[in-house]
Amino acid sequence: MNKVFTWMAWIGVPLSVIGSVFHWSALLMFVIYCLTIIALASYMGRATESLAIVAGPRIGGLLNATFGNAVELIISIFALKAGLVEVVLASLTGSVLGNLLLVAGLSFFVGGLKYKRQEFNVYDARHNAGLLTFAILVAFVIPEVFTMDMSDQDKLALSVGISIIMIILYLAALYFRLVTHRGVYQQKSEIIEEHEKPEWTKGKSILILALATIAVAYISERLVHTFETVAESFGWSELFIGIIIVAIVGNAAEHASAVIMAYKNKMNVAVEIAVGSTLQIAMFVAPVLVLVSLLFPEKMPLVFSLPELIAMVVSVLLTIVLSNDGDTNWFEGATLLAAYTIMGIGFYLL
Amino acid sequence: MNKVFTWMAWIGVPLSVIGSVFHWSALLMFVIYCLTIIALASYMGRATESLAIVAGPRIGGLLNATFGNAVELIISIFALKAGLVEVVLASLTGSVLGNLLLVAGLSFFVGGLKYKRQEFNVYDARHNAGLLTFAILVAFVIPEVFTMDMSDQDKLALSVGISIIMIILYLAALYFRLVTHRGVYQQKSEIIEEHEKPEWTKGKSILILALATIAVAYISERLVHTFETVAESFGWSELFIGIIIVAIVGNAAEHASAVIMAYKNKMNVAVEIAVGSTLQIAMFVAPVLVLVSLLFPEKMPLVFSLPELIAMVVSVLLTIVLSNDGDTNWFEGATLLAAYTIMGIGFYLL
Amino acid sequence: MNKVFTWMAWIGVPLSVIGSVFHWSALLMFVIYCLTIIALASYMGRATESLAIVAGPRIGGLLNATFGNAVELIISIFALKAGLVEVVLASLTGSVLGNLLLVAGLSFFVGGLKYKRQEFNVYDARHNAGLLTFAILVAFVIPEVFTMDMSDQDKLALSVGISIIMIILYLAALYFRLVTHRGVYQQKSEIIEEHEKPEWTKGKSILILALATIAVAYISERLVHTFETVAESFGWSELFIGIIIVAIVGNAAEHASAVIMAYKNKMNVAVEIAVGSTLQIAMFVAPVLVLVSLLFPEKMPLVFSLPELIAMVVSVLLTIVLSNDGDTNWFEGATLLAAYTIMGIGFYLL
Repeated sequence: MNKVFTWMAWIGVPLSVIGSVFHWSALLMFVIYCLTIIALASYMGRATESLAIVAGPRIGGLLNATFGNAVELIISIFALKAGLVEVVLASLTGSVLGNLLLVAGLSFFVGGLKYKRQEFNVYDARHNAGLLTFAILVAFVIPEVFTMDMSDQDKLALSVGISIIMIILYLAALYFRLVTHRGVYQQKSEIIEEHEKPEWTKGKSILILALATIAVAYISERLVHTFETVAESFGWSELFIGIIIVAIVGNAAEHASAVIMAYKNKMNVAVEIAVGSTLQIAMFVAPVLVLVSLLFPEKMPLVFSLPELIAMVVSVLLTIVLSNDGDTNWFEGATLLAAYTIMGIGFYLL
Repeated sequence: MNKVFTWMAWIGVPLSVIGSVFHWSALLMFVIYCLTIIALASYMGRATESLAIVAGPRIGGLLNATFGNAVELIISIFALKAGLVEVVLASLTGSVLGNLLLVAGLSFFVGGLKYKRQEFNVYDARHNAGLLTFAILVAFVIPEVFTMDMSDQDKLALSVGISIIMIILYLAALYFRLVTHRGVYQQKSEIIEEHEKPEWTKGKSILILALATIAVAYISERLVHTFETVAESFGWSELFIGIIIVAIVGNAAEHASAVIMAYKNKMNVAVEIAVGSTLQIAMFVAPVLVLVSLLFPEKMPLVFSLPELIAMVVSVLLTIVLSNDGDTNWFEGATLLAAYTIMGIGFYLL
Repeated sequence: MNKVFTWMAWIGVPLSVIGSVFHWSALLMFVIYCLTIIALASYMGRATESLAIVAGPRIGGLLNATFGNAVELIISIFALKAGLVEVVLASLTGSVLGNLLLVAGLSFFVGGLKYKRQEFNVYDARHNAGLLTFAILVAFVIPEVFTMDMSDQDKLALSVGISIIMIILYLAALYFRLVTHRGVYQQKSEIIEEHEKPEWTKGKSILILALATIAVAYISERLVHTFETVAESFGWSELFIGIIIVAIVGNAAEHASAVIMAYKNKMNVAVEIAVGSTLQIAMFVAPVLVLVSLLFPEKMPLVFSLPELIAMVVSVLLTIVLSNDGDTNWFEGATLLAAYTIMGIGFYLL
């Protein structure tokens, strides 16, 4: 798997530069950009992982929790710079739906084909359920309902206030998990698992992280400008591109590793990737983007479209109902995948 | 109980024919039709049950799961044929509310008057909770929100897509329960219970099922044409007839047996009837009706009125919160009945 | 703590009379009234508590459950008399949010700073979760959705019907907890805790309760007439005064004792105060106010504004998700407080 991504990156980056210099067709470039970013994201994930192991569990957890969705963050910042507020909100929605329904669904389904029942830490599941409820059902729903008759200025004030509270609570959650309650809700066997060897040295990891970040930034800026053409060519809405394509591109490598973990019966890790990534998107990437958007002419309030919001709300409720017993099987995976398909059709027709 | 239904059927069927030939008053015929269908539904239930026992657990489960709401399906098809799309949606809503709140509520309440605490299989409860969430909170809510500004054609396309996914997932759920995970989540004592003797032979069951189906079809076609007169006479809306009357008529026999099971402390069976029937309505009858409606001039998209949808959503949430501990008592029953009464008043005043 | 309230009451009551006779400024009087009511509410709480102990658990439970929010009830009746229907609905919302998010949040947080994990009776939590779901998600949501296109008369009819059902179910819940299922869901150690000595004799308790009630009534009538001036002076909406100020004033003493209980690791009591008080507001005070409003020219239907309703709905969902494992820690408290802050900002900007 890693080899494929290595090849894709080594071919994709030069192709991206050449293609953009010689003005190849937007459609072709869209495909090249997407594949290259997928490969680079995999690199960044491995570098972050190595750094995290070197840095020890506390700083490592912090690194994973903040850089884990760096690619998504970078693409979104360039999209905000290009004034594509709706696309950014859509890609945030897409990441939440993709992680909760597609990644968790595939993990449960594929894992469940091999094992009759798989288990994961029920305390983590409940902790995550609380955060998901806070992030989506409170922090995303409240501005939607309260800003209906609000001036744009108040709308932004509420969004900024909520964003700051979300970031603080996200950091508090890290402090809770990594410092005050480290291991409190885990069994001993689970804690031992954590002693791993880093793939790369500290220096190499930082170098790769830096180079890949620059490359992703370069490509992202070009990628967002192909959206309009692609949308027209395929008859897709920009919303659909944001929700399905950007979300999948930004998270593909991560998605793959979650499914592999599920197949190895490491359900704790698979769930952690799927739900942890969702929480990072909702409680860190989204509010940071709201604050970053203040630097650009087009501000982004934390107000999703109603279909986006409702899709996220029901996904969270479905995830909580399915996962709060800490037990999974292929049918729970199928249910999540069915929900993802329904929403995919819905967003396609919207 | 069965004797009463036998008499009702033997008197009701001829009366229905005579009355419809001699054009008796619509009000009288409405009452005769309803009582006769209740009696015939009981017959069909017993025939399906006998067939299911003969056929073994796998095919039997499939039979129960598809023919269990045959009466409701038949009435609804004739209502669709008569163009009464709103009445069909209302009667689907009524069946969901009736099963989740009235049947489960009466079962918990009546059972709870005799036993301080009653228990049912908590794994089944969770499996059902996942399906209820999928069916109502995802598959019913998504089209409501997404089709607000959609063309009628896209609305129907989304409805058909969702319906096909629901039917596939419903069949997958049967495959899960009857094949891959049969007994996995059950205690041994529960499995042994299943060896029963059929009431009727295979041949007799099929004959009765066939004759009763023809009779129900004949009467249903006439029944739906009395709605308008009845609605006018009593000052009821057709919606109210659909939600309260049709739903109760189609499920009366089943309702009675759930309460009897609860009184015998067979809570697993009572819950299975109430929730299983809800799932069958939501995940099989409703999508099948959407597909069947394509044959008629008046198509039925899977879009309920907002009060119908919200009533179903809050009923599902209440059911999940009350039942996910696998423990019931009279007060939980009273809570469900109170919720049903509130919704009844609401739909009456609508 | 009690001493402070005693001083506040002995100074506050005469000041309230003098100030109102000599027409001191509305702002000053608003502050005096609020502080005096907080002190008197503490007195009434202690008197009710003493009476409850003398009267034994059954009648005592009934007393606590009906007089526990007497102050809120009295203020609201005078607000209804003054035609301030929106303020009353807002203060009901504020009490629900304040108890579920602020009081429970502070209790979990403060208790969690001292203890890594705190536990409370999980059966009580589930019983309360069912009632919260019924009260907020069914009884408050249904009239909101169903009355959208209703005449004012039907709106009131539905509200009265729901109110009567809520009061009956609330009494049934008391009967369940105090009579039919007393101790059924508790451990022995928890039951023994209940033998306490009353602070005051029966006669003194009744006298204090009577005098404090008269004083609260006198001051409340004057308090509600200062709202307009205060709202103008501070640029607050009357809604904001209702949601934040009235709710805090009516419950301050109770709030303090919940947090103290959490700090003493008596989590059962802390949760009982927070959630029990919410249920009393939602299932007893709110419906009683609907019925009382029938005596005044301005009737109060049970229809909240959409932001109020959604804020309560998501608070209930968050509470249920966080508390259904019977385990708390500082982070769960922080999550509830963050949700309260978000809603506070929202209502301030509304």
